[in-house]
Amino acid sequence: MISIVLPTEDLRERLESRLGDAHLHVWAIGSREDFPGRADLFVLAYMTPPQRLRELAGLPIALVQSQTLGYDGIDDHLPSDIAYSNAIDVHEGSTAELALALILAAQRGIDDAVRAAERGNWDHRRRPGLAGKRVVVIGAGGVGSEIVRRIEPFGAEVDLVARTAREGIHAIEHLPLLLPHADVVVIAVPLSDATRKLVDAGFLAAMRDGALVVNVSRGEVVDTEALVTALASGRVRAALDVTDPEPLPEAHPLWTSPGVLVTPHVGGDTDAMDDRVDRLIIEQVRRIRTGEPPLNLVRGADVG
Amino acid sequence: MISIVLPTEDLRERLESRLGDAHLHVWAIGSREDFPGRADLFVLAYMTPPQRLRELAGLPIALVQSQTLGYDGIDDHLPSDIAYSNAIDVHEGSTAELALALILAAQRGIDDAVRAAERGNWDHRRRPGLAGKRVVVIGAGGVGSEIVRRIEPFGAEVDLVARTAREGIHAIEHLPLLLPHADVVVIAVPLSDATRKLVDAGFLAAMRDGALVVNVSRGEVVDTEALVTALASGRVRAALDVTDPEPLPEAHPLWTSPGVLVTPHVGGDTDAMDDRVDRLIIEQVRRIRTGEPPLNLVRGADVG
Repeated sequence: MISIVLPTEDLRERLESRLGDAHLHVWAIGSREDFPGRADLFVLAYMTPPQRLRELAGLPIALVQSQTLGYDGIDDHLPSDIAYSNAIDVHEGSTAELALALILAAQRGIDDAVRAAERGNWDHRRRPGLAGKRVVVIGAGGVGSEIVRRIEPFGAEVDLVARTAREGIHAIEHLPLLLPHADVVVIAVPLSDATRKLVDAGFLAAMRDGALVVNVSRGEVVDTEALVTALASGRVRAALDVTDPEPLPEAHPLWTSPGVLVTPHVGGDTDAMDDRVDRLIIEQVRRIRTGEPPLNLVRGADVG
Repeated sequence: MISIVLPTEDLRERLESRLGDAHLHVWAIGSREDFPGRADLFVLAYMTPPQRLRELAGLPIALVQSQTLGYDGIDDHLPSDIAYSNAIDVHEGSTAELALALILAAQRGIDDAVRAAERGNWDHRRRPGLAGKRVVVIGAGGVGSEIVRRIEPFGAEVDLVARTAREGIHAIEHLPLLLPHADVVVIAVPLSDATRKLVDAGFLAAMRDGALVVNVSRGEVVDTEALVTALASGRVRAALDVTDPEPLPEAHPLWTSPGVLVTPHVGGDTDAMDDRVDRLIIEQVRRIRTGEPPLNLVRGADVG
């Protein structure tokens, strides 16, 4: 009999009639109850920090299924005898949707309008918009491509950038040529050693005066100190769904920097998510039953 | 020689080398200087209230060219011997862009995030999003169609509504059938006697709990009092670029109503506008020269 461990009662209720005779247990990292015997599939609570994967050491888990797309820190923290799948096709659309929300809100002054409304102030000013602008999207994976699809009807020119060049996509080495012409730069790369602090003082200095940098990937892709300095000078603007550190502490200078819009890491978190998570888990259970390899395997188990 | 009267020095500078031997004058309604003789084309200052068109009575003007799309009030206020063209193709894209900015900001909680940021508060909550939602767009003209084009890649289901049904478009009589299923309702109709207070208490009562009404057309299409009551009950949410009255006075209850996002009538006002206004004026001057009828003629001159 297949044994599946789910992080919440809610998820168990959503799935209980849809997984045949599999045994469903509710248990999450940090739970005070005993681990329920064995897990063919262990579904991680949404947004579990990777450090906490260490707490799975010694537990009889075959495969961890995360509910997030990013998997930075897995190699450092997940016990080597446990396999790991990430959640492809769950958050890309929702994250791209938030990227557009951030771009449009920053370009059209929604943030200023919210603050003006608090003072009852009808503050009509011309704004830059998105139409006719040049947008550089860094990251040509699921999120990046979904962002490009959504920008197209707005009539902006998009340059898509990836690690290596291919048809219609620039190599990351060409960024220094692209940044000075961009009105908006969107960060949609996974966090890795190659992308950590990609947006540093040099990157920000290469951006056009008044340009907007949007981050919907991971906070560590941006050098926060360099960004705070660039924002303070009024040289660039930023719209960030992710920050370093995260959550941003109450007294952090980013909150009060000029020209910045911060949302609390809600890129993937909409009511469209549940249905996609359910479908992914159902497919993984089907594959466990038939012996097919799991979907979205990021790391296999080291069976020593 | 063709005589053209422009409302601002800025517009004269943009056009002076591009209109051949036409005489360009700068004069706007309310100007203390004498009217410059005669105008084959009189370009109206952006967002001139229609009431002020009365001040053109007795002036030798052949054609008024407005810089806006809406032309409510023309029949009441423009002297009958002056023709009038509106500005088709100048603001539709920009207004549709703002409609998307308002929908996405409201659905993804950008307004709440701005207020939380002022308190240094990382307030992570799940939000509804746009993907998978049902959107009713009322108005199938330029703005409505541009909104639909921009919504499409977000994976929402769109119902487009116009005065009369045609292929793929519902008749306005069917609204009572559509409203109870809509998560978002977008108002993109011109203001007329038929659309004044279209969004009244009955309309709002037919909307689904928690649904969002977005207005990017004219404030008078919404019954403000009915909306304030519906917002106070928490039944619906609203995102408004236009209000009645406008500008909204400092103490107006809409500013402090729950679940409302107000922008100060900036739908058409981005830096994409200038170029499109210039092209429209250049084309009108070309037509005056060749004797072709003007573009976008809303009302001819009554030559009695």
